[in-house]
Order: sequence, then C-alpha cells, then structure tokens
Amino acid sequence: MAFDYDLLVIGSGPAGQRAAIQAAKLRRRVALVERRRHLGGVSVNTGTIPSKTIREAVIYLTGLSQRGIYGQDYRLKEQISIEDLALRTRQVVERERSVIRDQLLRNHVTLLDGSARFLGPDEVVVVDGSGAERRIHAANVIIATGSEPAHPADVAFDGRTILDSDDIVLRLDRIPRTLLVVGAGVIGIEFASMFAALGTKVTVVDGRAEMLDFCDREIVDALRFHLRDLGMMFRFGEVVTRVDQRNGETLTTLRSGKQIAAEAVFYSAGRRGATDDLALENAGLDADSRGRISVAANYRTAADHIYAAGDVIGFPSLASTSAEQGRLASADACGFETRPSTDLPFGVYSIPEIGFVGKTELELTEAAIPYEVGVSYYRELARGQILGDTHGMVKLLVSPEDRKLLGVHALGANATEVVHIGQAVMGLGGTIDFLVEAVFNYPTLAEAYKVAALDAMNKLRAVGDLAV
Amino acid sequence: MAFDYDLLVIGSGPAGQRAAIQAAKLRRRVALVERRRHLGGVSVNTGTIPSKTIREAVIYLTGLSQRGIYGQDYRLKEQISIEDLALRTRQVVERERSVIRDQLLRNHVTLLDGSARFLGPDEVVVVDGSGAERRIHAANVIIATGSEPAHPADVAFDGRTILDSDDIVLRLDRIPRTLLVVGAGVIGIEFASMFAALGTKVTVVDGRAEMLDFCDREIVDALRFHLRDLGMMFRFGEVVTRVDQRNGETLTTLRSGKQIAAEAVFYSAGRRGATDDLALENAGLDADSRGRISVAANYRTAADHIYAAGDVIGFPSLASTSAEQGRLASADACGFETRPSTDLPFGVYSIPEIGFVGKTELELTEAAIPYEVGVSYYRELARGQILGDTHGMVKLLVSPEDRKLLGVHALGANATEVVHIGQAVMGLGGTIDFLVEAVFNYPTLAEAYKVAALDAMNKLRAVGDLAV
Repeated sequence: MAFDYDLLVIGSGPAGQRAAIQAAKLRRRVALVERRRHLGGVSVNTGTIPSKTIREAVIYLTGLSQRGIYGQDYRLKEQISIEDLALRTRQVVERERSVIRDQLLRNHVTLLDGSARFLGPDEVVVVDGSGAERRIHAANVIIATGSEPAHPADVAFDGRTILDSDDIVLRLDRIPRTLLVVGAGVIGIEFASMFAALGTKVTVVDGRAEMLDFCDREIVDALRFHLRDLGMMFRFGEVVTRVDQRNGETLTTLRSGKQIAAEAVFYSAGRRGATDDLALENAGLDADSRGRISVAANYRTAADHIYAAGDVIGFPSLASTSAEQGRLASADACGFETRPSTDLPFGVYSIPEIGFVGKTELELTEAAIPYEVGVSYYRELARGQILGDTHGMVKLLVSPEDRKLLGVHALGANATEVVHIGQAVMGLGGTIDFLVEAVFNYPTLAEAYKVAALDAMNKLRAVGDLAV
Repeated sequence: MAFDYDLLVIGSGPAGQRAAIQAAKLRRRVALVERRRHLGGVSVNTGTIPSKTIREAVIYLTGLSQRGIYGQDYRLKEQISIEDLALRTRQVVERERSVIRDQLLRNHVTLLDGSARFLGPDEVVVVDGSGAERRIHAANVIIATGSEPAHPADVAFDGRTILDSDDIVLRLDRIPRTLLVVGAGVIGIEFASMFAALGTKVTVVDGRAEMLDFCDREIVDALRFHLRDLGMMFRFGEVVTRVDQRNGETLTTLRSGKQIAAEAVFYSAGRRGATDDLALENAGLDADSRGRISVAANYRTAADHIYAAGDVIGFPSLASTSAEQGRLASADACGFETRPSTDLPFGVYSIPEIGFVGKTELELTEAAIPYEVGVSYYRELARGQILGDTHGMVKLLVSPEDRKLLGVHALGANATEVVHIGQAVMGLGGTIDFLVEAVFNYPTLAEAYKVAALDAMNKLRAVGDLAV
C-alpha cells in the first residue's frame, strides 16, 4: 500500500510537536492533525503556558516576594482584576501559537486541520470544523492527544462557580474571596498557591494523606508550611461527598461530616486522556477507565506502528517529559536508535516553586541506597537576602561511596531553573568535589550548590573519621 | 621566634574571609584585622552588596521588566525616593555583616579591631579606633585590604554633585534628572544602567574606544543597544579635561571641546589598591602607582611568607574571584596543595545583566582556535515571553573537534545565574550533545542551552557535510 505519510501525529502539544519535528529532521514525510484553534494543545492554550503566565503576573502584580521588604504599600494594585491577568495571557498564548506554527512549517510538517479518528491500524480520517473528511494512510501513527480535566459524574461543573482548570484559565470572571480546591496534585497546588497569593482564602481537600508524593518529603513539608503562611488550609484524608450551590455561593460536604463554604470550587481531581473521539477500537487499541493508553518500550502501543506519548499515557504529564517521549517515539518509528535522556528534571510551579532531579530521600531509603544530605538555605546567601527569599533551599543527596549526586531538590525563587545546575553535574557524573571547588558569580543563588556541597562534605568526613 | 598566629589576614572582604576560613579549617591559628564598622570590606559595605541590593530594588520598584507588558501605569511609585533604596540596602548590609561575623567566629578566627601596619616582614601593629596599639607576630600574612575609588587630583569630589561610587551608595540624597558617568568599566556601567532605569538621562564618557573589553563583543554590542534604548548616551574616545560647578549643576568639558551639563557627575575612573596605610616598605614590599601589589604564583608577593589577594592585586576585582584567590593564597601559606578552580565565571550586573565563562570569540580567534557558534534568544523561549525579556540571549562557543564548550556568554534576565549551567558542562568536559539530549523544565530559561546547542550542532553538520 502507498502511504500518504511516513508518520502521522495526532495532537500538537509538546509530545506531538517534538515527534513531528524529530521525524521531519530525519527527512520523513510528516503530517500533524490538530484543530486549528487548538494549535499547541493544552500546554499552550489552557495548561502550562497560560497558568505560568498568570503565575508570573500574580507574583509581579501582588509584589509578593517584596512584601516583606517594602510592606503592603508596594502592592501594585489594590484590586487586581482578572482582566489584568487575562490580557497578558492572551499575548503570550498568541505568540507561542505562532512560534509553534512557524516551527512546524519551517520543518515541512503538513498541518491537517481537524480531529482524527482511526478507521484501521494505518488509516485515519480527519474531520475539520465544516465536517469535511479526509482519509490518511500513514506508515506510523503517534497518538499525542493529551488530556482534559476529569469530571466526576456527580459534580455539576458550571464554568463559573464550580470550575475545572480550563474554566479557571478561560472563564473565571473575578478573583473569589474564598476558594475550595479539590485535589492536591500539581495543578491543584499550583492554582491554590496563585489564588492564595492574590489574597483568596484557599482550602485544599484531598482524599490522600499526602500531597505531591513524587517530590521529596522535606521539600513538600516546607512548601506546605509556606502555603499555610499564605493563609491556606489543608484537609487531607477527606473525601468530597457533595457540592451544593446556594445564593451564588457553594457549600461542600465532606464524608467526615464537615462542611466548607466558598465562593467557588476548583475541582482538580485528575485529568483523563483525550481518547474518546479516536475510535481506538478500529486500530485494535483501547484506553483505561481514565482514557489513558498504555505503552511498552519506546512508547509503542499494543498495535504495530502506533505509538502514544505525552499526557495521554499518564504520569508525569509535564510538558518537558512529554516532549522527550514524543522524540523517542518518533525516533523509534523512524527506525532511528536514540538514547532516552537520563535525569529528567521535575518542576512544580507553586509559590514558592519546586525543582528536582534524581531520587528522593524516600526512594533511596526504600532501595537501601545510603546517602548523605547537604543543605543550603537561600536566607544564608547574599542573593537570598537581596531577593527577600526567606524560605528557599537546595538539598543535595550524595553517595558516600563516590560523592556523586543521587538527587537534587530545590524550593524557592527560580527553583525550576536552579535545579539544572545539579542536573548537569549529575548527568555528567560530577561529584560534590566539583561543586565545592567551583567558583560561582556573587551574589547568585547558584552559590547554594557550593554551600550544600560543603555541608555534605563535612558530614561525610565526620562519618569517615568514625567509620570502622 | 614564637608566632602569635600561623596566619594573619589583613582585610575582611571576600578574599580575607575566605583566606581566614580556609586556614582555620586546616586547624591553623588565624587572626583577621578589620575596623569594626567595616566588617565584610567594600564588598558588603559600599560595593557589591549595596549596589546589587539597590539594583534589585530599582528593577522591582520601576517595574522595568514589566513595562512592556503592563505599560507605565504599573510603575510602582511615580517618584522613587532614595530612601526607598537606602532602607532596603541597610537591612541587607546589616544582615550580611552578621553572617560574616558569625562565620568567622564559628571557625575560631580571632577578630582584631583596627587598621594594620607592617613593622617588619612578620610583624604587624594593629591600631584600633582609640589609638591603642597591639603588635602581632605571624608566620604568614595575607594582604586583602581591597580597593577604594581612585580620585584624579584635578577632580573636586564633593560627595553631593561630583561623586565616587562610595558617595553614590552612601551619600547621594536624590535621584538626579541628568547624570554624567565618567568611566565605562563594570562599576560605571552598572550604576549608569540603574540610573537609566530610574529615568535619569545618563551620558557615559570613556577615553577608550570600547567598554567592558573582557566581555564578548556581541554581548557588549547588544547591551549597549539596550542601554541606548533606556535613553543612555555614549561618548567613547573622549577625555574629561575639567568639571565645573555652577548653580548646583555641573558642566563637564571634554578634550574634543564638547561640553556636557548634568545635575551630577559620577566619577568611576578605576579603583586603587588600599595600601597607603600598610607601610609596605617595612615588609620589603611596594605598590604600583595605583596602590596595587604584584603577585607571583599562588598569590605570593616579593616578600617571603606574605601574600596578596583580591582587589588589592587588580583585575578582575570580582567578589567571587577574590574569594578564590584568598583560598588559594591561604592553602599555599598552610603548605596545603590545592588546585585552582578552572572556568571562573564573570558577572556584570548591568540592566540587562551579563554572565559568561570561558573564552570570548575574540580570544579564540586571536589564538587561532576554531569554533562554531550556537545562539538562542530568550524571545524564542516560552519563558522569555512570559518574563517579557525581549533582549536576552545565550551564546555557546563550541569546538568543532570534540564539540566541547569553549565559552558561554549570556545577556538578559538572570544571565549571571544562567551561565552556571554552561559552567558545569564546561567544567565536567561535557559536549553540546549532552545539552541537545538534555530535558529541561518547561518553561525555563535553561532551555536556551538546548536551543543554542542545536543551533551549533546544525552548523557543525552543515560544515561537516562540505568538509574535504
């Protein structure tokens, strides 16, 4: 059979973009299916980009980081309006969309407007907004359709008072005085901390006993401490049984019998893979109860020549890792051997933010891998003082055997950036000796690495002196 | 002879602190001489710390980085007062002083209050504020007395209208509408850009044809472009012949005959080593015409057992490199072998700021070392868009032979921090392949490394395809 394309990519988020460009760079004929107005996927339109843009605006407009320094007087606007936040978001989203479109076209990726549905393992029909259909035969298909907010059947989302994350970004028309956030995952905590920074009284409810359980416990403990300092209230191990609306307010009942009144409820109870419209069964595939597709090595699905990458396969659902998955799936589809990137960093854009790479203390302990800890607090650094960041820290987990880094965990200003120094050292097999001897610009947050490495070194020496 | 101390350190700036602590950690008896109110040296009291604190306040209070986004409306205060800037500076300076004092005392360094003068090669007298004298015999001495603003004899500094950098930090009582900066060195450019950000019309005069000639040309060109965008005017190759005061204003005459009126003149015509009061001749030493002491390997002076480190030996006079010099001098004095740190980074805290490590294009070309260039502009990154940083960039200079980094040059938001990722890769012998394959948090500025590495890789391939 003659194929129209070597590779058909469904979805234009980070996984889809990267998959398409990787194959195009290997000189394959590539097409990418996306609804015109959704170019960039959730990441650009309702996810990462809008939420991080709003976050930056919140930090700046509230003067949050500087309040301790200049006092409330320096808050920019007494009443920060949703329009202030939306304006900036629209600019950045438009810009990113055009960057992505340019990049795809420059790499000779054919953009097919519409939604895709499988007709068979190597045949897909693309239906555009006018209902026009186009059948495509492709040698390989990569499903990168992403995810959408999960909507529990018994919650009456209305886009105004009971909201999912799309609503928060696109439809929220005021900043509520009180907000209940259901779900203490990454998205729940990121938005909860933004609203807390804006002055909203936020309560977070989660059925689990812990939050962000893939992060290091000490870092999460410190984050929670600072979120409480922003006035946030946590209810862990609590399950929402009903949400009622009354006089434009909400009343949420928990299984424990507690009731919580709030101007709005943000339901962030996970996301589901956007696979409902794909007719996966025609390709011999299926999705789990949360719409996710399971994959084996190199992101191959159960069907020959079909791959899945990004949010649609589940955790960690980060733009950066999704892009990497897309690259690996695409390279495999093109018969091109490539190494998976090691030491993937994680970033949580809470306020303060988290960045980490490598193992957590818990993981190392469970695997019976010994480690020593080296810590540096931003407040001990000149740069931390200048920034007024009193809660930031960098923690290094170090192998006592070869003094290499096993994990790097950062909290505070620019933590998602700061972690990359440790990532480079870890990825290139450097030891804490390198960090102890390194000279960093002064004053910078990078100095935290030197201080933390010295701390670990001193502890290793103390143990070494006593070791039998 | 019985020595009172194994090591006597004169001066408590970055070089002196680090020298004292290094020797203390090696269990030496260490004393450090400093006037009580000057603890931390110029760095903490009138140099790095105050200027970087003022800079941070200026960036925040002027809303500079956000003006493009929110417009002038979002400027925090129409009239930013010098008191706003001074308040914050005092807090940070106090805090740093106490951090340094604690650190020295915790390491059992004896603090001697006063000024030091050599009586002989291994004898120093310390005179405190009350005139009381104390003679100290030390096996080794490290001179780390730092520097002070150079005062050309024919300029009538008055601390109010004709200023040096100490005056700017300590005594300036208003933000001038117009300012003439004489000297386009690091300090001149850093303050010039701060005042330009505050709305002052700044003119910079320098006798040389270029500014910041240790930095990469392309980066400096871009910086100058953006400083002009802030309304700054440059007069290179121009020499000041006289500065007159009339009606509280200044009129500066250049050798070319031009005259420049300004509310204030900031003279930043270099710094001189603070050696006048040391009676160097008693130790068999002397200083050059700018008060500087020359040193050989390991920062040894011409006199046995006497070392000099930090600003007092001249370029580069950065806090970070001075600390490293102090460490190396101290280790040598203690008979302890240590490796000098390679790949020292440089930071210029102009607005926008510069960070770099390794070689410049000019240095590589002069040494006939071939290189390829990879560039990434912040504006092409999602994070750059979110920050509204339209001028930032990262440039990698790459060896075509082994694809290792020869130089990393950054301009823009957090450039002094961003450069450390490249520094780690360079220091650990990583190649651009590592950066191309790395996954960075999204959205971060760190992604610039991946984009720049890809750019270099593509150019290297294009050349490779055609190479004979």
